[in-house]
Amino acid sequence: MTKQLKNMKPVDTGSLVDKVEVRLLAFFKENNLKPGDAIPKELDFAESLGVSRTVVREALLRLRTLGLVESKKHRGMILKQPDIINNFERIMDPTLLGEDTLKQLFELRLILEMGMADFLFENRTQKDMDELEEIVAAEEATDTGKIRFTLDKEIAFHGKLYQMSNNSTLQKFQNLLLPVFDYVYLKETKNTDLDGYHFSGGKFISHRMLFENLKVGTPETFRNAMRRHLEPHFDHAFKSNSK
Amino acid sequence: MTKQLKNMKPVDTGSLVDKVEVRLLAFFKENNLKPGDAIPKELDFAESLGVSRTVVREALLRLRTLGLVESKKHRGMILKQPDIINNFERIMDPTLLGEDTLKQLFELRLILEMGMADFLFENRTQKDMDELEEIVAAEEATDTGKIRFTLDKEIAFHGKLYQMSNNSTLQKFQNLLLPVFDYVYLKETKNTDLDGYHFSGGKFISHRMLFENLKVGTPETFRNAMRRHLEPHFDHAFKSNSK
Repeated sequence: MTKQLKNMKPVDTGSLVDKVEVRLLAFFKENNLKPGDAIPKELDFAESLGVSRTVVREALLRLRTLGLVESKKHRGMILKQPDIINNFERIMDPTLLGEDTLKQLFELRLILEMGMADFLFENRTQKDMDELEEIVAAEEATDTGKIRFTLDKEIAFHGKLYQMSNNSTLQKFQNLLLPVFDYVYLKETKNTDLDGYHFSGGKFISHRMLFENLKVGTPETFRNAMRRHLEPHFDHAFKSNSK
Repeated sequence: MTKQLKNMKPVDTGSLVDKVEVRLLAFFKENNLKPGDAIPKELDFAESLGVSRTVVREALLRLRTLGLVESKKHRGMILKQPDIINNFERIMDPTLLGEDTLKQLFELRLILEMGMADFLFENRTQKDMDELEEIVAAEEATDTGKIRFTLDKEIAFHGKLYQMSNNSTLQKFQNLLLPVFDYVYLKETKNTDLDGYHFSGGKFISHRMLFENLKVGTPETFRNAMRRHLEPHFDHAFKSNSK
């Protein structure tokens, strides 16, 4: 290879539409455009960027798919406040995600439930607490005396906690992670006999105990109780690490 | 209005492309297609669904934008394992997100940092700890003796913690939330005089103290230390709630 050829940069093979997408996003930013602002016409972008209208149209179509722009009657296209959850939702299919990603999303759930305690104590209302107690009571009414995780009971109780965090982004995030939780959870419980489970902290922390803790405890005591409640899931996460 | 007209259902004005997108996703699921599997041709979908090729093409283009399918030379289109972070990345522009969403994403950061303790203790390596100590030492070398949050120091230390969690989805998530953190953080520090800040737990917990805690403590002691370290941010989050 000659010296000259060594210094040649490889041809940029990135697609033209990719480049135009990036340029459009940069244009919105540089011009400080806000949601609701009209954006220039397809033809004007095409002329400025020196590309075909078809390329601009495809790039704009992508931005529409991502929820960043929308078409308005008589106004052309305007910028839109993107729904960060909606995009996630469409791709969150456990059968399409890899094992690693599923495992990491399940860990993310444990992290969120451990971390939300302060927001629960800050935002809990009497109405919330009453509803949470109803959930616990309904659960106890069908209790078999054995420690059993059943998915619907888990979702009812922990879902209510997410709702009580008073953070709708977190709550939507949890909702769309649910299929992933189901998926990992079912695999996990197949291999775990909870009746014979040895809890390092002594005894099992039930939903009732978590409820009582949220009533009279502090974020600190609640986090410790939640950690013990989630112990089989943590153990499972750590065990599959060392495999 | 006559009785008959009352019972007429409104015309469904949802776009045809929306419907085809949903039908394609359902088709992949029902047929248990996995990443790497080839999918039927545009024309075949069009015939089965009774819509034009243009409509199918646009729906497939959307799925390509979302990273769910890709075109392969000589193989047509195949299903792809979607990168759940990549879609987020393109829309995560703080100037386009609403104030509520920004606030909630910032709260999400606090939740993640409070919740990740167990994974730090489980996965920390000597190399990680050495690097974390270097970060703390470099920070102290430029210390002014006052409690000051500066964004680059925060990112270096807390970014390393995310990395040590050994969860690449969490880490990518943190990376793409960074512009949001910057944005909220700068607004927050403008209104907070940390030198005169009263910490309810007594004194301020520094990065050095967090590091020492991670070295000799437990997830429980680390969570309590992290809570006090993040106290100004929590206070800020709670204060803006009550406004």
